Amino acid sequence: MVYYFGRSRTDGDSSQKQLLGGKGANLAEMSSIGLPVPPGFTITTEVCEGYYEQKQSMPKGLMDAVRDNVRTLEKETGKQFDSVDNPLLVSVRSGAAVSMPGMMDTVLNLGLNDKAVEGLAIITGNRRFAYDAYRRLINMYGDVVMGVDHEAFEAAFDKIKKKYKVELDTDVPEQGIVALCAAYQDVYKKHVGSAFPQDPMRQLELAIEAVFKSWNTTRAKRYREINEITGLRGTAVNVQAMVFGNMGDDSGTGVAFTRDPSTGEDKFYGEFLVNAQGEDVVAGIRTPRPVKEMSRWNKGVHARLIEIKDTLEQHYRDMQDIEFTIERGKLYMLQTRTGKRTGAAAVRIAVEMVKQKLINETQALLRIPAEDLTQVLLPHFAAKAKRNAEVIATGLPASPGAATGKLAFSADEVVKRTADGEQVLLVRKETSPEDVDGMHTAVGILTSTGGMTSHAAVVARGWGKCCVAGAGVLQIDAKKKTVTVNGKKFGVKDVFSIDGSTGEVIVGAVEREQPKLSGDFETVMKWADKHRRLKVRTNADTPRDAKRAREFGAEGIGLCRTEHMFFEEDRIGWMRRMILSETKVEREKALTKLLPYQRRDFEGIFKAMKGLPVTIRLLDPPLHEFLPHERDAQKALAAEMDITLKRLQQRVHGLSEMNPMLGHRGCRLAVTYPEILEMQVRAIVEATINCRKKKVDAKPEIMIPLIGTREELALLRERTEQVIVDVKKVKKFTGKLEIPIGTMIEIPRAALTSGGIAEVADFFSFGTNDLTQLTFGFSRDDINSFLPDYLEDEILPVDPFQRLDVEGVGQLVKKSCVDGRATKRDLKLGICGEHGGDPSSVRFFHKVGLDYVSCSPFRVPIARLVAAQVVLEEASK
Amino acid sequence: MVYYFGRSRTDGDSSQKQLLGGKGANLAEMSSIGLPVPPGFTITTEVCEGYYEQKQSMPKGLMDAVRDNVRTLEKETGKQFDSVDNPLLVSVRSGAAVSMPGMMDTVLNLGLNDKAVEGLAIITGNRRFAYDAYRRLINMYGDVVMGVDHEAFEAAFDKIKKKYKVELDTDVPEQGIVALCAAYQDVYKKHVGSAFPQDPMRQLELAIEAVFKSWNTTRAKRYREINEITGLRGTAVNVQAMVFGNMGDDSGTGVAFTRDPSTGEDKFYGEFLVNAQGEDVVAGIRTPRPVKEMSRWNKGVHARLIEIKDTLEQHYRDMQDIEFTIERGKLYMLQTRTGKRTGAAAVRIAVEMVKQKLINETQALLRIPAEDLTQVLLPHFAAKAKRNAEVIATGLPASPGAATGKLAFSADEVVKRTADGEQVLLVRKETSPEDVDGMHTAVGILTSTGGMTSHAAVVARGWGKCCVAGAGVLQIDAKKKTVTVNGKKFGVKDVFSIDGSTGEVIVGAVEREQPKLSGDFETVMKWADKHRRLKVRTNADTPRDAKRAREFGAEGIGLCRTEHMFFEEDRIGWMRRMILSETKVEREKALTKLLPYQRRDFEGIFKAMKGLPVTIRLLDPPLHEFLPHERDAQKALAAEMDITLKRLQQRVHGLSEMNPMLGHRGCRLAVTYPEILEMQVRAIVEATINCRKKKVDAKPEIMIPLIGTREELALLRERTEQVIVDVKKVKKFTGKLEIPIGTMIEIPRAALTSGGIAEVADFFSFGTNDLTQLTFGFSRDDINSFLPDYLEDEILPVDPFQRLDVEGVGQLVKKSCVDGRATKRDLKLGICGEHGGDPSSVRFFHKVGLDYVSCSPFRVPIARLVAAQVVLEEASK
Repeated sequence: MVYYFGRSRTDGDSSQKQLLGGKGANLAEMSSIGLPVPPGFTITTEVCEGYYEQKQSMPKGLMDAVRDNVRTLEKETGKQFDSVDNPLLVSVRSGAAVSMPGMMDTVLNLGLNDKAVEGLAIITGNRRFAYDAYRRLINMYGDVVMGVDHEAFEAAFDKIKKKYKVELDTDVPEQGIVALCAAYQDVYKKHVGSAFPQDPMRQLELAIEAVFKSWNTTRAKRYREINEITGLRGTAVNVQAMVFGNMGDDSGTGVAFTRDPSTGEDKFYGEFLVNAQGEDVVAGIRTPRPVKEMSRWNKGVHARLIEIKDTLEQHYRDMQDIEFTIERGKLYMLQTRTGKRTGAAAVRIAVEMVKQKLINETQALLRIPAEDLTQVLLPHFAAKAKRNAEVIATGLPASPGAATGKLAFSADEVVKRTADGEQVLLVRKETSPEDVDGMHTAVGILTSTGGMTSHAAVVARGWGKCCVAGAGVLQIDAKKKTVTVNGKKFGVKDVFSIDGSTGEVIVGAVEREQPKLSGDFETVMKWADKHRRLKVRTNADTPRDAKRAREFGAEGIGLCRTEHMFFEEDRIGWMRRMILSETKVEREKALTKLLPYQRRDFEGIFKAMKGLPVTIRLLDPPLHEFLPHERDAQKALAAEMDITLKRLQQRVHGLSEMNPMLGHRGCRLAVTYPEILEMQVRAIVEATINCRKKKVDAKPEIMIPLIGTREELALLRERTEQVIVDVKKVKKFTGKLEIPIGTMIEIPRAALTSGGIAEVADFFSFGTNDLTQLTFGFSRDDINSFLPDYLEDEILPVDPFQRLDVEGVGQLVKKSCVDGRATKRDLKLGICGEHGGDPSSVRFFHKVGLDYVSCSPFRVPIARLVAAQVVLEEASK
Repeated sequence: MVYYFGRSRTDGDSSQKQLLGGKGANLAEMSSIGLPVPPGFTITTEVCEGYYEQKQSMPKGLMDAVRDNVRTLEKETGKQFDSVDNPLLVSVRSGAAVSMPGMMDTVLNLGLNDKAVEGLAIITGNRRFAYDAYRRLINMYGDVVMGVDHEAFEAAFDKIKKKYKVELDTDVPEQGIVALCAAYQDVYKKHVGSAFPQDPMRQLELAIEAVFKSWNTTRAKRYREINEITGLRGTAVNVQAMVFGNMGDDSGTGVAFTRDPSTGEDKFYGEFLVNAQGEDVVAGIRTPRPVKEMSRWNKGVHARLIEIKDTLEQHYRDMQDIEFTIERGKLYMLQTRTGKRTGAAAVRIAVEMVKQKLINETQALLRIPAEDLTQVLLPHFAAKAKRNAEVIATGLPASPGAATGKLAFSADEVVKRTADGEQVLLVRKETSPEDVDGMHTAVGILTSTGGMTSHAAVVARGWGKCCVAGAGVLQIDAKKKTVTVNGKKFGVKDVFSIDGSTGEVIVGAVEREQPKLSGDFETVMKWADKHRRLKVRTNADTPRDAKRAREFGAEGIGLCRTEHMFFEEDRIGWMRRMILSETKVEREKALTKLLPYQRRDFEGIFKAMKGLPVTIRLLDPPLHEFLPHERDAQKALAAEMDITLKRLQQRVHGLSEMNPMLGHRGCRLAVTYPEILEMQVRAIVEATINCRKKKVDAKPEIMIPLIGTREELALLRERTEQVIVDVKKVKKFTGKLEIPIGTMIEIPRAALTSGGIAEVADFFSFGTNDLTQLTFGFSRDDINSFLPDYLEDEILPVDPFQRLDVEGVGQLVKKSCVDGRATKRDLKLGICGEHGGDPSSVRFFHKVGLDYVSCSPFRVPIARLVAAQVVLEEASK
């Protein structure tokens, strides 16, 4: 139940984090490799678990074991509980297997009582110090262990300060502090109902129980939830002899990282304060000095610290975050743990440690948190600049990055003002495909409704464009071109900055930093590529995006949406005419006009991706998404088409649907309007032949969306093949032209009947966005009205549109893979939903045997890294 | 390849329908039991299959076999092909295993040529008759076999009629008919390019091929599609010696049913025509005489016919539909087959045949087409009255029945005019929950958009209210209160009749017949109840519906929707206030007002269903469905609530969703607004306790809709149980009060994770409507834009909302049953979607082991019958 650490004996080591907690395991480890650690002992996490199993009662025998260990501690330190001569003081700290900073309780100076305080005064020769330590104990103990309101102690302190007419705590003289201890004891007695316990063992027992209790406070549970910490038994309790950094100018305390946690540079990086306790460093009242200046204060201690730093890095083979205290010139190590770092630092440290032969490539790859790579790739606000920013709202971090611009309230306005040389943010309640042109042009996108997978969020992520979505406090009046936030009104001349990684909306401009890709990043990517089995493709609709993704290592396009192509100025008119045609002849005429545009688009993408596969998805959204919904635009279109406004509105209304997501879209369009499919396939095949003639190795794959039955795909495949044959004939192309024809698996029924569908498919690509929508019955556009409660009530561990729901949706993916491959052994399998760039989802996709994942360009490196990590994790099992 | 039937020998029998077709098998059967059948032979359906397998070429050896059989036929009849003395004439008819009336081709009088016609003239002593037969052959042969346009023959006939200055065919004299044969031969030669074939064997060969070809015409394929006829090999070809009913006044022809096909009465029922051919009876030019009058014309023939009728019923043990011809006083049977009958007749015949010991109970039950029972239960238009009706539109037969009323264009109007004593039909583009009150009040519902499972259709079926949906040609102007159909305008004073079984919309009133439930019906139901394992419950929301369903034999309520209860005049205001509340306190106040209404509703239903389980579904639809969407209603509500119209509109807009079907509804409401669930559960429990105190055995079951995860149900179950405990305590109720708590399985994820969900559920009820929507990704409200093409292109065999898609959705149902029962062996399983009353779906639900199906009241008897049939079918295997 209890593990001792000290000079005389150390029971545990750093491998026992589950049992001893991170802090306890590392104290034991440091102790056993001879570092100067104040001795103490750790009560295991199993004891905490037992405490809860036995309805919150202290396990039998625990206090006996504690007493034994206290005796060992007394022997080793020569100090004793309840002693006037040389009193033993201890700290009592929590420490779970996973760090939960600030979440659980700590009691310092335990062991002091009316007798021992006098002993401490004598030994230190500093009575004020001794009583100050005592009043801190009474306060902390009352607060943490007995639940006395902190305010009550504050009020007592204020009285004393008033009496001595001082403002700062530190200005209260010795007799004031002594009086304060008495006053605090009164407060304690008044609130608790009994006197402050004078027996140190009794103090200790209650403090240990308080730490156990702190494991299950609401805020601790919430913290574990948010950080998805599961599978822990409880917290350990570390009881350790006190050392004091505030015993005078020969004492001090500090924290340090063994390397720079922000850049990763191999440079000792830390701060210390003379004559101070750890909490002073954290509280930030006094400004600490950099560690490198320590040698001027105490050369020996500084040298010893450097030496320990090296020992720790050599020993742990990772960057450490350490805490230390100097008591009267003697250095003590209080904590060491793996240091948190930025994405850039993670990359640099990993690569340099390989060079320094501290770790190997495998360890390096496993050590970089894939998600953190976004920081390496996207611009962000300078940390300093942000510190003073006025954050007026926080939305969802929909698409990372940082953007600053004046406010624009419609897509047209964005296009116009950008052409006039302004940098503008598009601010909308929500976006729709009509807005795509403006969204692409804007420097960033800010919406007041919609979730992480709303239209704005999905499109923006695809482009790597910064987006904050669902900032609900924004009241946007698009007509008046104003946005009101908590009573403050902003207009077209105002500037906002949005942080797509945090969801913050900031008034005014904030300085941005553009990251440069380091050689280390390239090195890591190369290592990853050596190990991974999964291919990584990208979702890209334009040559520009395709090119960027290729630079990030994309090995093809897994999803090229064709609908965005129709929104550009010169095409949307014909698209609308096509949709509003009432006869096949009219429709075909409009499609003939659209054909050259599509062909040119495809040629551009094929060129950018030459030699690599490009999966083109045929038209997917419901047609009415392309139609104008505002009266002015409708009027203009009606005039252009020479029909009445009323007729046009009737058509628009006729095409509207109750539940467009479940309506006339995807392959259903191709079934009812075969000429749309024909035009698109024609454009693809003509573009391919044109490229091939110019020696550009175009490799298209045709993907038919929203298939639910084998019969749909069989029919559309036949139509598609017919067009391919026709175009080859017309173009007199006699070369080999094998264009795979496959389907999205995004309808549950398709997943359930994949065995049959595979008979007529060359590949499957899982559309996990729609598959998640339908499997859960959640509309991505509407989920925000209840998702927050679902996360709060722990009904869902996480937004299923961000991380694949392996339990439910994953079953369908797995079944589809198994059944599809049972029909066709070499069926190519990929995924092109938003989950293709989510680390934990990528792990799942690897495990079910997909051939590739496809994700937005900026997530390609993440997917490459994770794909390697999962292989290495499997190998290490 | 060829099966002979005749006096000398008969190869086949009635068990060989698959091979010989229905007609061929029955001709063989009649022949073999000694009935007077003109001899002939049948070419098997396998030959037809072979014809298509060999790319439409006549199988080898076929014509040799045909020649052999012709020789046998010649021997038996003493007649010969191509003979002047006694020419053999044959009919060539198609005949598949399943009857496809009028769909395939027939050639009569085959064998006639320029020589044989003279022979026929001599034998019959009637030259005009012989040449009339010849011209009919040339016409029919040219039309059916060679594809000559019928109009060309008509034109030639007209010339002759002009020449003889007569109007009727029958008035043309002999020499005119002779001249007509020559003229027809000219027409034939001109269109075909060669002369009319004089060789009877050649005639026969081409006619046989023509019958094969008629199997795959578009209209034949379409017919099979519509009637869902699959698995057939092709058509058989029946070649049979001709007999003539038009050889003079001692000849005749007729059709008859061995019992009355309309009522089922055991009374010979048929018609005959003297000196006529079969086609004359069908064409309806002359009025046939009832068979009972036949004895006055020819006593012997009549007696023989009665004798044959009895033989056939004894032999086939079912009501027969027969065709006969009398040639010069001699009776010939040309066809017998199982007779089509109405639902009422099916019931009566089955019961009476059991009494007559012709069949047993099992056979009787298996013989009644369950679907036809609707006719027995619902009012319908009198057949005679309908014959003269002006059908101006045909929509979908959304809810069977017949209704006549003046047109009303809004729900309010319906309520008001009904209160004023009018009978009105509600005519709307589509309906929404706002209209429910008016829908319930109207005599019938007619919509211009929406499918078989649109809101109007589902609600109407639930009530057994007549509804025609999606009558697209209706242009409804609700403001002006007019509906325009093909240019004709109708208003509030006009009367329509709608036939919910055919989808017809008729101008004016049509006489209706109200069926009375016969004792036979009760007998059948009692028999069914003896055999079935599945329980049958009903979907009912009101005491009235509950009572009616109970009379139809419902064994409980499987789905009691609570949302309709909120639409009544006195409640909707409080409901709207509840929804628009911006604080929990306001919301709770409104809910307190709603509580007594709900409690009273439940008490009424519990009373109506006393002793039987009542499954109550908690609030399901998105809240905005309850809000007023028209300006006037919004204004009124805003005034009532003392807020501005703008504020109200904002709230309404804020609650609207992109895809409400996938939005904030079902249990998601209970998660975010726990107080709604609490009010509803409170009302249920209080109503139960009140009933129990009055010795009414109320048996509620609480059903939580739209569950997708175990965690949702666990949380809501806990909240529900808490309310039950609270109410018991407040009401001081100490008796036993076990209220099962279960869930709908309607979200694919719930079906996929049923093992876990079953841990916290007492029952599952499959919501196959939503499950179908989500598994296919089809919105019921929007499906009509593509479903017709899907059926046309054979992508779907049938609307999956009408018949359960066993291949896809069925997989989920089955998996959920298996996994649910693996967790909890006695988990109660039911289904309450629309499919609960569809015969083929009920068969499936039986097979996967559900405990009950729940369907609309009028479908309860259907489900009872099918549930018995499936058991009997299984036993007979």
